[in-house]
Amino acid sequence: MNAATPSPRKEESAQQRWDRIPVLKTGDDYLASLRGRGTRLFLFGELIDEPADHPIIKPSINALRASYDLAIDDPELATAWSPLINDRVNRFLHIVESPDDLVMKNRMQRRMGQITGTCFQRCTGLDTISVLHSITYEIDEKHGTHYHQRYLDFLKEAQRKNILIAAGMTDPKGDRSKRPAEQSDPDMFMRVTRRTDKGIYVKGVKAHMTGGWNQHWICVMPTMNLTEADRDYAVVGMIPGDAEGITYIYGRQSCDTRAMEGGEIDQGNAQYGGQEVLVYFDDVFIPHEHVLMDGEYEFAQDMVARFTAYHRASYVCKTGLGDVLVGAAASIAEYNGLEKVSHIRDKLVEMVHLNETIYSSGIASSHEAKKMPSGIYMNDAMLSNVCKHNVTRFPYEISRLAQDLAGGIMVTMPSEQDLENEEAGEIIRRFLKGREDIPTEDRMRILRLIENMTLGRNAVGYLTESMHGAGSPQAQRIQILRGMEVDKKKWHARKLAGIRQEA
Amino acid sequence: MNAATPSPRKEESAQQRWDRIPVLKTGDDYLASLRGRGTRLFLFGELIDEPADHPIIKPSINALRASYDLAIDDPELATAWSPLINDRVNRFLHIVESPDDLVMKNRMQRRMGQITGTCFQRCTGLDTISVLHSITYEIDEKHGTHYHQRYLDFLKEAQRKNILIAAGMTDPKGDRSKRPAEQSDPDMFMRVTRRTDKGIYVKGVKAHMTGGWNQHWICVMPTMNLTEADRDYAVVGMIPGDAEGITYIYGRQSCDTRAMEGGEIDQGNAQYGGQEVLVYFDDVFIPHEHVLMDGEYEFAQDMVARFTAYHRASYVCKTGLGDVLVGAAASIAEYNGLEKVSHIRDKLVEMVHLNETIYSSGIASSHEAKKMPSGIYMNDAMLSNVCKHNVTRFPYEISRLAQDLAGGIMVTMPSEQDLENEEAGEIIRRFLKGREDIPTEDRMRILRLIENMTLGRNAVGYLTESMHGAGSPQAQRIQILRGMEVDKKKWHARKLAGIRQEA
Amino acid sequence: MNAATPSPRKEESAQQRWDRIPVLKTGDDYLASLRGRGTRLFLFGELIDEPADHPIIKPSINALRASYDLAIDDPELATAWSPLINDRVNRFLHIVESPDDLVMKNRMQRRMGQITGTCFQRCTGLDTISVLHSITYEIDEKHGTHYHQRYLDFLKEAQRKNILIAAGMTDPKGDRSKRPAEQSDPDMFMRVTRRTDKGIYVKGVKAHMTGGWNQHWICVMPTMNLTEADRDYAVVGMIPGDAEGITYIYGRQSCDTRAMEGGEIDQGNAQYGGQEVLVYFDDVFIPHEHVLMDGEYEFAQDMVARFTAYHRASYVCKTGLGDVLVGAAASIAEYNGLEKVSHIRDKLVEMVHLNETIYSSGIASSHEAKKMPSGIYMNDAMLSNVCKHNVTRFPYEISRLAQDLAGGIMVTMPSEQDLENEEAGEIIRRFLKGREDIPTEDRMRILRLIENMTLGRNAVGYLTESMHGAGSPQAQRIQILRGMEVDKKKWHARKLAGIRQEA
Amino acid sequence: MNAATPSPRKEESAQQRWDRIPVLKTGDDYLASLRGRGTRLFLFGELIDEPADHPIIKPSINALRASYDLAIDDPELATAWSPLINDRVNRFLHIVESPDDLVMKNRMQRRMGQITGTCFQRCTGLDTISVLHSITYEIDEKHGTHYHQRYLDFLKEAQRKNILIAAGMTDPKGDRSKRPAEQSDPDMFMRVTRRTDKGIYVKGVKAHMTGGWNQHWICVMPTMNLTEADRDYAVVGMIPGDAEGITYIYGRQSCDTRAMEGGEIDQGNAQYGGQEVLVYFDDVFIPHEHVLMDGEYEFAQDMVARFTAYHRASYVCKTGLGDVLVGAAASIAEYNGLEKVSHIRDKLVEMVHLNETIYSSGIASSHEAKKMPSGIYMNDAMLSNVCKHNVTRFPYEISRLAQDLAGGIMVTMPSEQDLENEEAGEIIRRFLKGREDIPTEDRMRILRLIENMTLGRNAVGYLTESMHGAGSPQAQRIQILRGMEVDKKKWHARKLAGIRQEA
Repeated sequence: MNAATPSPRKEESAQQRWDRIPVLKTGDDYLASLRGRGTRLFLFGELIDEPADHPIIKPSINALRASYDLAIDDPELATAWSPLINDRVNRFLHIVESPDDLVMKNRMQRRMGQITGTCFQRCTGLDTISVLHSITYEIDEKHGTHYHQRYLDFLKEAQRKNILIAAGMTDPKGDRSKRPAEQSDPDMFMRVTRRTDKGIYVKGVKAHMTGGWNQHWICVMPTMNLTEADRDYAVVGMIPGDAEGITYIYGRQSCDTRAMEGGEIDQGNAQYGGQEVLVYFDDVFIPHEHVLMDGEYEFAQDMVARFTAYHRASYVCKTGLGDVLVGAAASIAEYNGLEKVSHIRDKLVEMVHLNETIYSSGIASSHEAKKMPSGIYMNDAMLSNVCKHNVTRFPYEISRLAQDLAGGIMVTMPSEQDLENEEAGEIIRRFLKGREDIPTEDRMRILRLIENMTLGRNAVGYLTESMHGAGSPQAQRIQILRGMEVDKKKWHARKLAGIRQEA
Repeated sequence: MNAATPSPRKEESAQQRWDRIPVLKTGDDYLASLRGRGTRLFLFGELIDEPADHPIIKPSINALRASYDLAIDDPELATAWSPLINDRVNRFLHIVESPDDLVMKNRMQRRMGQITGTCFQRCTGLDTISVLHSITYEIDEKHGTHYHQRYLDFLKEAQRKNILIAAGMTDPKGDRSKRPAEQSDPDMFMRVTRRTDKGIYVKGVKAHMTGGWNQHWICVMPTMNLTEADRDYAVVGMIPGDAEGITYIYGRQSCDTRAMEGGEIDQGNAQYGGQEVLVYFDDVFIPHEHVLMDGEYEFAQDMVARFTAYHRASYVCKTGLGDVLVGAAASIAEYNGLEKVSHIRDKLVEMVHLNETIYSSGIASSHEAKKMPSGIYMNDAMLSNVCKHNVTRFPYEISRLAQDLAGGIMVTMPSEQDLENEEAGEIIRRFLKGREDIPTEDRMRILRLIENMTLGRNAVGYLTESMHGAGSPQAQRIQILRGMEVDKKKWHARKLAGIRQEA
Repeated sequence: MNAATPSPRKEESAQQRWDRIPVLKTGDDYLASLRGRGTRLFLFGELIDEPADHPIIKPSINALRASYDLAIDDPELATAWSPLINDRVNRFLHIVESPDDLVMKNRMQRRMGQITGTCFQRCTGLDTISVLHSITYEIDEKHGTHYHQRYLDFLKEAQRKNILIAAGMTDPKGDRSKRPAEQSDPDMFMRVTRRTDKGIYVKGVKAHMTGGWNQHWICVMPTMNLTEADRDYAVVGMIPGDAEGITYIYGRQSCDTRAMEGGEIDQGNAQYGGQEVLVYFDDVFIPHEHVLMDGEYEFAQDMVARFTAYHRASYVCKTGLGDVLVGAAASIAEYNGLEKVSHIRDKLVEMVHLNETIYSSGIASSHEAKKMPSGIYMNDAMLSNVCKHNVTRFPYEISRLAQDLAGGIMVTMPSEQDLENEEAGEIIRRFLKGREDIPTEDRMRILRLIENMTLGRNAVGYLTESMHGAGSPQAQRIQILRGMEVDKKKWHARKLAGIRQEA
Repeated sequence: MNAATPSPRKEESAQQRWDRIPVLKTGDDYLASLRGRGTRLFLFGELIDEPADHPIIKPSINALRASYDLAIDDPELATAWSPLINDRVNRFLHIVESPDDLVMKNRMQRRMGQITGTCFQRCTGLDTISVLHSITYEIDEKHGTHYHQRYLDFLKEAQRKNILIAAGMTDPKGDRSKRPAEQSDPDMFMRVTRRTDKGIYVKGVKAHMTGGWNQHWICVMPTMNLTEADRDYAVVGMIPGDAEGITYIYGRQSCDTRAMEGGEIDQGNAQYGGQEVLVYFDDVFIPHEHVLMDGEYEFAQDMVARFTAYHRASYVCKTGLGDVLVGAAASIAEYNGLEKVSHIRDKLVEMVHLNETIYSSGIASSHEAKKMPSGIYMNDAMLSNVCKHNVTRFPYEISRLAQDLAGGIMVTMPSEQDLENEEAGEIIRRFLKGREDIPTEDRMRILRLIENMTLGRNAVGYLTESMHGAGSPQAQRIQILRGMEVDKKKWHARKLAGIRQEA
């Protein structure tokens, strides 16, 4: 990590990089595309040979894979016609051409949440390409650059090959009272370290990258507004996940190692999980064709603001998880023979009410989208922030209610291995029975699913990432403050109060 | 009130009734149209000669009048092109032809809320004509009746003359464990008492009719699902507000008599207020042309359900009131010199967040509207219920926060007459001053406005009617329970938990 | 109000002032003692001849009177043995000698709340004499003054005569960014204007004085911490309510004028109400014997902090009002024949739970009281602040639930005069009936009581004063921040996290 | 498990059973006492040889051990003088002789929570011996039995030897619509299967026994009210943890296996944890001296009600955990350099406010304790239920706020093994740094502690057991409904509303 003597990197062209990736049609194609990439990924202190086959990583890949499967199973929902390549494309790669496109995206996100019960990691990529449409356009308008065409070229290829793009946004930030260029460690924010004929080199770390290893490309971009002094930090570029110089360190999650225990009951949701990685870019090369900003620092703020306008509405995905949790809570009530009890029904209603409130603020934000100069539509920012702000609250209450309906047994239940043991299993099957006609194991499975979503692996996505993803609560409050048009509101109040004021 | 000897009523034709009402263009036309109608209205135990000029009633008329003024001031927002009469009509009389029409309606409702700071009483009428479009159509389809044409004829005339329609829905209900036909008092629900060649006679009471006296027509309709035995209670009809046999009794509101004290400061909002009346129909005649249901009891349930689908989303009007309250709270903070203080800004942000959450569920419900067989669009029922359910909660919290920002002086401040008194006024002006450059009187005016909306006359509309209008909270919970698709949710949960089930 | 030429005042001695007040035993004695005092009180812009008989003021006097009646009806609860005069005294005049005394006080406060359903205005006086016990003692310790003996002398006479003391604390404050001595208007905080052989003169205003006119003495005292420059503002003194130079201006309340309408139903609670007055002291004389602080500015902060420690726990009185509101809500449910319905019972339970949570933090604060150097006990400050902070929230939610149970009829019901009218009354009695065996009037009475406590006159006490009395919410948060012992908490956390730190 | 041929059991006398246990003085004594007991415990499908040394079980033993250590470190807090044996005893074995004893118990519970940050498992035992004091006394009064003396004899020995008692209360319940004697499986509730000269045999399962393996004795008792038909289910007895016929199955917890990974950082709280076990009693013998109820079914209901009165107030222990979480949240804010930021301080204040609200309802319940006929004091049941009900809500909100302050890194952070790896560790240490002077590892440790308490192992105790321990929320609501004295409340309301009623 000595910045003075840069590692010699192969200066691949854009074409060379694309050539490594085949056209992907099915979920199996996608899975195959992840293998043999020769990436460097640390998990539990070891470099993992073939991450795609690691039991802890596999569920997170499955979640992304579901987006390929859904496009085949329900093309109306999960694909769209792209005028860019005159073909149907996965909706996660589609440029939104209308408010309806955004609403369809939200419906697809909710469905993906229902199917996977976890963070399926594909929204950040979509929201990144969405924001780059208008930002590259506007940089070109001002600076006479050609980013927008580069962007369109990249996107066409992405659509043709049907690949995945991860967003690399969050820098470590170091001393939060200092700007990027003022940090004692110049790499605390990602920056351009060199520029050559063929491209640029970037260095830095992107923290909690959602699905960071599972995707084919990483789009690195600034995490906050920048000043002229931060010019080298104003960089946006597309990097293949297997580029030289990248090191991944896997983020661990609550109950992650249950995936390595052999069974499946105790995982709660054995098939699907989320993924967050810390990614170190040690002088990674980007050919010019894949550079979409280099130095235009004044666009960083807008880029972030627009990204959050899109991305905070993307959190309607959590209503899909909410649907699963409501279904799990209703199931355990049914398995206990209590689903007609009024206080239990009332709690289910409350869960649904909160869940639909989130959904409504998300789709309202999409329905109210406005067209940008580049032609793309963008979510209404106020409602998008309101959606996300509700997401920082209601999933916690929905979880609390799910735990209420689950009963204490959710956290005192013996392990799956005990259930498999002849003697212990007999005791468990006999005494942990609820309703006569429901196998004890089914009851345990539902309880483990609720545990998974409220304490375990997918609680990470349903709770903590609901809190902090796309910006922590205070970030939304600042946006709401900015957008609240308090002067108009004061005017109406004063008018009604009979206070003289200018019209 | 002796049911045995019915009063002899003039059996007016539909035409005769319409002839009494001129074409209304302006707010002044509207005001004029209310005078000299010879209605019987009780207020404080007395029959009021000319209600339109009574200081307590006037503000409620002003609120409706604002809907005429807005149509002139902002025709894009408050009018629409009606293919029925090939002309622009007030949007409150427009049949919604698309989701966009519903969204525009919501925007107009919010604006009306901002302008009046109160319940402007015109939504129930619009939502009534909306539901009758599809219901009359479907009755005709089933029974070969001709209600839909009657309905369209009425509506054309209503649009041409630009009149107001009040909804008469809520019956007193008496013993809630009994159905209408089982009540010991047969008039506890409105019913048809006689049928003649020319029309029918109805008898009963409609409780808390919003703006009941202020409008030209009253549409009476059932309040709940009915059975075959309740056939005579299955009646929908249009009745002019000045029809023979109607008695109005005015509902009193918190602080209503401040309007009679002479000043205007202490009213908080001197210009605008709401109105609820109890209306007794003592064998009131309806000509056949204005009968839109008579005996088709099986449609009562759908009628109510669809009405609430429209009407519960109409409660986005409260976000207009919320805007006023946010503006008032921000004003008092400014007048106290405290508007930059972080906890104060944070409370304003919270108020806005809650307010916009309501708005988003309302417009989401409109954006997601679906077309009915009759061609009209109807709000998404789940989201409409979610909207209203939030309205039963958030305005209370917004009010609490407004009171927090107002300070205790809001409820300990001397009266306007004290301010007018030379000696007392001097003390008040000197010592109740906040920021140097703000007149004490302005500060008092804003405080009285907050009092008006959180305790006083318009708290009735902003709080209690937010709770109960369009159905009490439990009514929404029942609808949410019915619409929650719990089986689908269970299916997803069980799939993820690995429980065997049918696809 | 020209400060330059002070009005000539009679410099009465302490004895002369006491001589005007007889020994009071009964509620009637108390009532008589208020008449003929010759005070100057403005109400609705007029000087009121005999305030004690004014229909708006009377209910507030009744509430205080109940404290005399309760002492006779339940002496164990409402009196205590005072070693100062070797006799039983009203508990509102008793110096707390143990935590149990504080708990008994809380129980009496709750009972008074149940009896009156309003703010009975006597707690501020008790909490004032409580804090003066320790403060005068400690000033004497430091400065060799003799305030404590003066205090004890005053208190003995107060106990013997069984009189009432109002607290005059809140100054208008003017420009909140400036200290008292920095204000452009030097009277924005109460201050000593002159000192003579016999005593001192004070000038200023005390805002929202609870029961300010209804009591025999007013204790004026500083409202915030003071610096050396504010020395003249550091004044505590006892002033009779009828002293020369005092002008009262009555604070108006929501629905106050219903008391002047003749009936009693529409008042909701016709007998009891609260009172807040703005009091102007225009060079009012205080003889030395009644001066308890003059210039010892450094004790102002402690005085305020201790006052709030006592007073914020006094807000358990609101649980008495909460009991009434629960009872009213349960009654209307019963009158509607719905009291066994599960969601209604559940709402009652929630109201009780919140109410008892307030109660528990109040009495916990009292049970955990600690002895002061002067011998008196003081509430635990953290728990007292926690109690009051809950009071700024839960009564609003309890009110919301009460309105939910009341139904919309609470705010659309005709007036009492309509009920009295023969024709209108017949319609109302017939159609506003709930359960067959309950008179319509009783149903209306309960609804008016709920209106009274959630929107009307006593909502002022139950809601807005719950918010701001004894300090607004932010004031409690500051105290909680100061008392939270965050370093201890950090120590425990770091220990468990295995972080090296000093023991 | 064939009920027909009971296993031949050694019919040990009470003395024999006591003789196996030495006098325990120190934590080390306690630890030693658990070893070599020959119990049968399943964990992950295997019988564990020496559970006391198992890395997953060890932390739960440490938590109990802390109760021995505290008695030595702070005897005033954690011991009391027992007149039964005329010696100081651990307060967890002390019969409460006054409200103060209960308050001291609550303080000790909070301290234990601060020390361990988890459920220390000793409250159920104390609350069990507390309730048996009065119940055995009252059975004897009615039936002339001698349970109370047996109870005292047991307790003396327990105090002398300073041992631990676990509570075995919750039966599996099977079909919840049927009573114990009606179940298709007669062992679904614990019952007496045989009675011999020397004692009785019991059979059944006790679910989620807190610290069930870690204690020396188990007190089995009924879990709900019983009828005459359930006579054999009305059994209370003391059984040593190593009695013949007992099988333990260990309850698994979120992140439990992190204890087996070798490090300590990722455990968050490596030293302390909770324990819940499922315990099967297969015809276990109890000598008569240790039978404290056998057939007196009518006392089951009171027994449960009194147990919950004690135990629901014991949940003040969670305020100790709350203190740790506040400290952890404040630490991470400090480590990020953000602790003076106003919204962050505000969130800490909110956490403290909620935590102290819980504490206040708990100690209020203790302060308000009443004496029982047997001489013991019992918590006020209403306030105890209120305390527990707040515990089912506030820890969830405190956790949500802690996660807000922690930031997303809490759930995306690499593992401890990655930190240990040279290459990965260097990246982590460099880039996950917050404030310059705080080691990255310390920051990670605090984050892992917050994860531990909000998602991980001790979230089980802080959240889900807060929800369900001592009865689920609905159980408290039923008690609050029963104790709410609604008639008194109605009486007050009607009096104020002017409704005629009997005094």
